[in-house]
Amino acid sequence: MNKTRLEAFSDGVLAIIITIMVLELKTPHETSWEAIKLLIPVLISYVFSFIIIGTYWANHHHLLHTVSSVNSKMIWANLHLLFWLSLIPFATAWMGESNFDSVHVAVYAGLQCICGVAYYILLRVIVGSQPHNKNLLRPLEKQSQKGALSFVIYAVAIPAAFLHPAFSAVLFILVSVIWFIPDRNIEKAMKV
Amino acid sequence: MNKTRLEAFSDGVLAIIITIMVLELKTPHETSWEAIKLLIPVLISYVFSFIIIGTYWANHHHLLHTVSSVNSKMIWANLHLLFWLSLIPFATAWMGESNFDSVHVAVYAGLQCICGVAYYILLRVIVGSQPHNKNLLRPLEKQSQKGALSFVIYAVAIPAAFLHPAFSAVLFILVSVIWFIPDRNIEKAMKV
Amino acid sequence: MNKTRLEAFSDGVLAIIITIMVLELKTPHETSWEAIKLLIPVLISYVFSFIIIGTYWANHHHLLHTVSSVNSKMIWANLHLLFWLSLIPFATAWMGESNFDSVHVAVYAGLQCICGVAYYILLRVIVGSQPHNKNLLRPLEKQSQKGALSFVIYAVAIPAAFLHPAFSAVLFILVSVIWFIPDRNIEKAMKV
Amino acid sequence: MNKTRLEAFSDGVLAIIITIMVLELKTPHETSWEAIKLLIPVLISYVFSFIIIGTYWANHHHLLHTVSSVNSKMIWANLHLLFWLSLIPFATAWMGESNFDSVHVAVYAGLQCICGVAYYILLRVIVGSQPHNKNLLRPLEKQSQKGALSFVIYAVAIPAAFLHPAFSAVLFILVSVIWFIPDRNIEKAMKV
Repeated sequence: MNKTRLEAFSDGVLAIIITIMVLELKTPHETSWEAIKLLIPVLISYVFSFIIIGTYWANHHHLLHTVSSVNSKMIWANLHLLFWLSLIPFATAWMGESNFDSVHVAVYAGLQCICGVAYYILLRVIVGSQPHNKNLLRPLEKQSQKGALSFVIYAVAIPAAFLHPAFSAVLFILVSVIWFIPDRNIEKAMKV
Repeated sequence: MNKTRLEAFSDGVLAIIITIMVLELKTPHETSWEAIKLLIPVLISYVFSFIIIGTYWANHHHLLHTVSSVNSKMIWANLHLLFWLSLIPFATAWMGESNFDSVHVAVYAGLQCICGVAYYILLRVIVGSQPHNKNLLRPLEKQSQKGALSFVIYAVAIPAAFLHPAFSAVLFILVSVIWFIPDRNIEKAMKV
Repeated sequence: MNKTRLEAFSDGVLAIIITIMVLELKTPHETSWEAIKLLIPVLISYVFSFIIIGTYWANHHHLLHTVSSVNSKMIWANLHLLFWLSLIPFATAWMGESNFDSVHVAVYAGLQCICGVAYYILLRVIVGSQPHNKNLLRPLEKQSQKGALSFVIYAVAIPAAFLHPAFSAVLFILVSVIWFIPDRNIEKAMKV
Repeated sequence: MNKTRLEAFSDGVLAIIITIMVLELKTPHETSWEAIKLLIPVLISYVFSFIIIGTYWANHHHLLHTVSSVNSKMIWANLHLLFWLSLIPFATAWMGESNFDSVHVAVYAGLQCICGVAYYILLRVIVGSQPHNKNLLRPLEKQSQKGALSFVIYAVAIPAAFLHPAFSAVLFILVSVIWFIPDRNIEKAMKV
């Protein structure tokens, strides 16, 4: 079995997930500053989620790039990941609409933890299915490190939301920054 | 004619079907447990339908993998299948919103029966168009067996919904389990 | 320039157009027969439009199959077609919601005329760009004949809607039937 | 890394962006001319945005056509562009619903400026990553010229909206016309 359709289907689902979030940006009927102000948390939530889904897409791209064949286990692990990612638009809208209420922010952070675990399962399934594929070692190592770090930060963001949602927001930004930093620097920092 | 666009179009439609269901998860305006409780049946319906569409996609993938050329009959049989599958988001939302009302559950089970028949028609059209393609024998045999079993279970779930919707829910889970079990075990159980 | 992305983008847009129509099937909050009855015209409109978009996709597939390279004119003629097709979900919902009001049915038929013209423009642009491509002759001839016939029928359906919308509905079914009939029979009937 | 998935994902997102705008064309419940009249500004906004997204897609197609490999920078520059483009449906709906209110038109024009900058960043990142790829020189030169001109016109359209929204509308049409004119004529006009 080849991987073309797995990629195409995943790209389709990710493209839809990333785009339907914009439907939550409901047009205010007034032009007053009061009306527009309500959009700001929705827009900020959208930016967070856009970066997160974009990061998943880029990593998924890197991970599957070195895979040569696809089996049933990978298909199901991939669908499992897509299921949890598909809930991000809901959590995003819920967080934005409530203007970053603690409970909503904690749910959002919790969902990111689950998505991280689902990605890690896909990673292990792929590596387990292709034990002799040396090209997988680099994305495995790199994505595992950054993934574990992200998981810990999101896990901390859950209780942090009850202290103040702003703490969680800072942690969300931190995760985004981690994925932007070139890998060598991360590796150095890990060694220190 | 080649099959690339048939796959691409089907992947697109299936990706959209699987993702727009999440739009039914309407964000509750309150954070109270009462408000969130109403989401649970909608979420459970979504999980059922996500697994069903995912299974169709995986089987469609396997089925078309061995096909070398596409004719008009296949295109129409495929569109026919996509039509019925496209109604799943509606039936899912209707079942979830009503908190598993008997009539709604029965309609959902009935739609699954029709989708099963539509898939079987596509299977027969493809096998009929390529009578000498021996690679088709395995998916044909495997998918026919599991498909027939699923059809019977969904058909039983229609009257079962009027006894108690929970019976139907158990049957829906049973169908999902059937498609997860490796094929050899199914074949053994069929022989016994 | 190659045609892969033109096909992929068109497939994406057509897949979305065909699927978002189902969002108009709004779940009734009651289970009464009265509530469900209101869905029937919406569902019938959806079936009409699903067949129409499916037919456009299949023809688009046939047409582009024999094209080897793509130029700017084709890209714009294709976008022009997609624009008019993208209005079909709106016209479909409007017709279905009004329970086949004369004005709405006439607008629907009129839109189908415009889509037909847009498809014909794309056909002429493609044939004009590849005057020596003999593989284009068959789809050109076949699609022009059926297309011209469809255009006339839709044009008749506009005034027919004001006599009785049922006349237009019969004409819409007639168009679908024309595209299902194998081409040889059409050609024979044309000669007689 | 190859560019197939970058193209597929971008095509998916652009296809969804261009199509979900049509969801803003809400079906009026009455058939009166008064009700339909309200749709006209929404429809005009849709036409503007459809042409703009179509132009981005066509240019994106041309730009990536000559690229042979993809790196992380390109992936992020592309996601950055898609983010801003994904806000176009919101700005379109907001402009249309308000019947071309000055503030809304200015926001729309401002968003187009940002999208233009995002596209230019992608262009520079791609050219910077492949300094020896001579095939990139033509789209670079052509798209930079037209892009700069478009940027200036959109920037002028921001204050113009406060004089009268019609001035901005004329400027929007002007941008569309620029992208339709064959490149040679543009180059000539620039030299004069």
